[in-house]
Amino acid sequence: MTGCILEKIMTLQKTLERIIPVSEEKMAGIQARLDRQAKPRGSLGRLEEFACRYAAITGRQDVRRKAIFTFAGDHGIIEEGVSAFPREVTPQMVFNFLEGGAGINALGRHVGAEIIVVDSGVDHDFEPADGLMLRKIAYGTANFAKGPAMSRKEAVRALEVGIEMALFCKEAGIDLAGTGDMGIGNTTSSSAIVAAFTGLPVAEVTHRGTGIDDAAVARKIRVIEKGLHVNKPDANDPLDVLAKVGGFEIAGIAGLVLGCAALQIPVVVDGFISTAGALIASEMHPEVRDYIVAAHQSVEIGHAYILERMNLRPVLHLDMRLGEGTGGALGMGMIEAGLRVMREVKTFDEAGVSEGSEQ
Amino acid sequence: MTGCILEKIMTLQKTLERIIPVSEEKMAGIQARLDRQAKPRGSLGRLEEFACRYAAITGRQDVRRKAIFTFAGDHGIIEEGVSAFPREVTPQMVFNFLEGGAGINALGRHVGAEIIVVDSGVDHDFEPADGLMLRKIAYGTANFAKGPAMSRKEAVRALEVGIEMALFCKEAGIDLAGTGDMGIGNTTSSSAIVAAFTGLPVAEVTHRGTGIDDAAVARKIRVIEKGLHVNKPDANDPLDVLAKVGGFEIAGIAGLVLGCAALQIPVVVDGFISTAGALIASEMHPEVRDYIVAAHQSVEIGHAYILERMNLRPVLHLDMRLGEGTGGALGMGMIEAGLRVMREVKTFDEAGVSEGSEQ
Repeated sequence: MTGCILEKIMTLQKTLERIIPVSEEKMAGIQARLDRQAKPRGSLGRLEEFACRYAAITGRQDVRRKAIFTFAGDHGIIEEGVSAFPREVTPQMVFNFLEGGAGINALGRHVGAEIIVVDSGVDHDFEPADGLMLRKIAYGTANFAKGPAMSRKEAVRALEVGIEMALFCKEAGIDLAGTGDMGIGNTTSSSAIVAAFTGLPVAEVTHRGTGIDDAAVARKIRVIEKGLHVNKPDANDPLDVLAKVGGFEIAGIAGLVLGCAALQIPVVVDGFISTAGALIASEMHPEVRDYIVAAHQSVEIGHAYILERMNLRPVLHLDMRLGEGTGGALGMGMIEAGLRVMREVKTFDEAGVSEGSEQ
Repeated sequence: MTGCILEKIMTLQKTLERIIPVSEEKMAGIQARLDRQAKPRGSLGRLEEFACRYAAITGRQDVRRKAIFTFAGDHGIIEEGVSAFPREVTPQMVFNFLEGGAGINALGRHVGAEIIVVDSGVDHDFEPADGLMLRKIAYGTANFAKGPAMSRKEAVRALEVGIEMALFCKEAGIDLAGTGDMGIGNTTSSSAIVAAFTGLPVAEVTHRGTGIDDAAVARKIRVIEKGLHVNKPDANDPLDVLAKVGGFEIAGIAGLVLGCAALQIPVVVDGFISTAGALIASEMHPEVRDYIVAAHQSVEIGHAYILERMNLRPVLHLDMRLGEGTGGALGMGMIEAGLRVMREVKTFDEAGVSEGSEQ
């Protein structure tokens, strides 16, 4: 899977043109089938919702293959002392992913999802390896406190890396995709993205990341405020926001969401950083939301604002804040639970169960 | 598994005497091990909590075998027109469970849990069958709007059926138990239990059950009020509450919770009816709470009051209201996700990852 698999490129523009809403009619038809099953109508709640959405998008009632794409990139902004961890942790964690020893590997195995690591901007030259996609745009972003994180052209290329991963899913029979991230400094970039789009005060959308103290949070807020002041990202131009305060892994996630929507692949979006990526995609084309399942509610305070803006309701509330795609893995498990109900629960007729007066 | 497996009986009294709290020291030691793993400290949130609790109780880091006990019983109170479904649905659903066609079967298969159906009070004589425990106390409760649902002696026997199931777990190497219920009319009984213990107005803890309309909810409230007035259950005597307004399946669940606590088996408690059973157990011996994982937040409005009274925080929020143990199955999956993290995520040292300044 290293470099040789796909030469085909679907451009950002073509991708945006292909996105259409999920059919309400199909969803209703599928729900009607679930309503004939021997249980009080709607009593499996959101499991039924997840199954309906998946089946309406894919036309399937099962998942043949599922994969989480963990995009990795470095961030120039960490020069400003915004993270509890040093820069070298980004490539170190990439090696940990490839060796199977990280949280996302454990949870991927728990639900039977493959983990595909995409280097879209790590400050390290990796050798080709199984499960690693070498798609580096640069050795990390520039420090956005001093100027744009990347050029507009780089932003488009980084988005197209994500789109390429959606194409890979389509060709490889991956029916369900998940997003993940690794990049020291990326909660800083994500908070900047949220503030840029929502206009909320930076302090309201900025939190502890991997675990910084109060003084460091205050510094992080000042750094983001400075970055927004210096760059003046245009909230009406999502590509501008991405280029000025985003990250290469965040762009990859945004591209994957766009690509999945264009190619009719349901995509499970992980926590704060992934949702910041999904927000970029959604600001480019709001109908991508139909293809998204928001995996969980992160501890990061900015996350809830993005979910609200995108009108997404998270599947899980487990006080998680690891990223990597870990919440996404668990979210996939919930979609498959819903699909199993859809496939295996008998109807009132089949089970010989009397219907209620509510029916 | 039908009648022959266990003659041994652990009495209610002996069970209560054996219950001790889970060691805080053990929990802290296990958390310290998790804190050495290559991830921001505590960043897998509640998954870490579930794994710690399980490991502290069992001394294990894996689950060899897990089972959901779906207790079934009928309710005399349905004479009062409180349910959307007719009485014969209880045995019909028992057959559906045995044939593998119900929600709990699908979700049990999803997480790899066995389903064991316990007839503790269904109005039907079942033939012996695989996966069915014949432990009938009576052919359903009496109508509690007119007098006690069962005698005090029957209540003890029904509790001891649940305790026996915990003993069965211990002997069969079942490391993780789940509770489930089937019984037309049992949300009425559960609401009565909650009102009896909390003193809350019946209207605040009574909801639609399987799907009754507003007029039927109003009738259900009046029926419960009448039942509480006629029986005057003593909130300081949980056995009195159980006997007067409870059910045989609710008693079985209460007994399973008590037995699991006494025998150091973590028990995943499903939704509203199961939690009403767990409340009976907790009012008898508050330390049972240490052994409980509350699987999910049910749509039934009375459920939140019980969780609050027991100081339990549900794992999942999926708008479910099916019962049977369905939420419990999904909750088991989350505990196992936490255990997989505990077993498989490398430490900073092992993974060669630099530690952060937070460490």
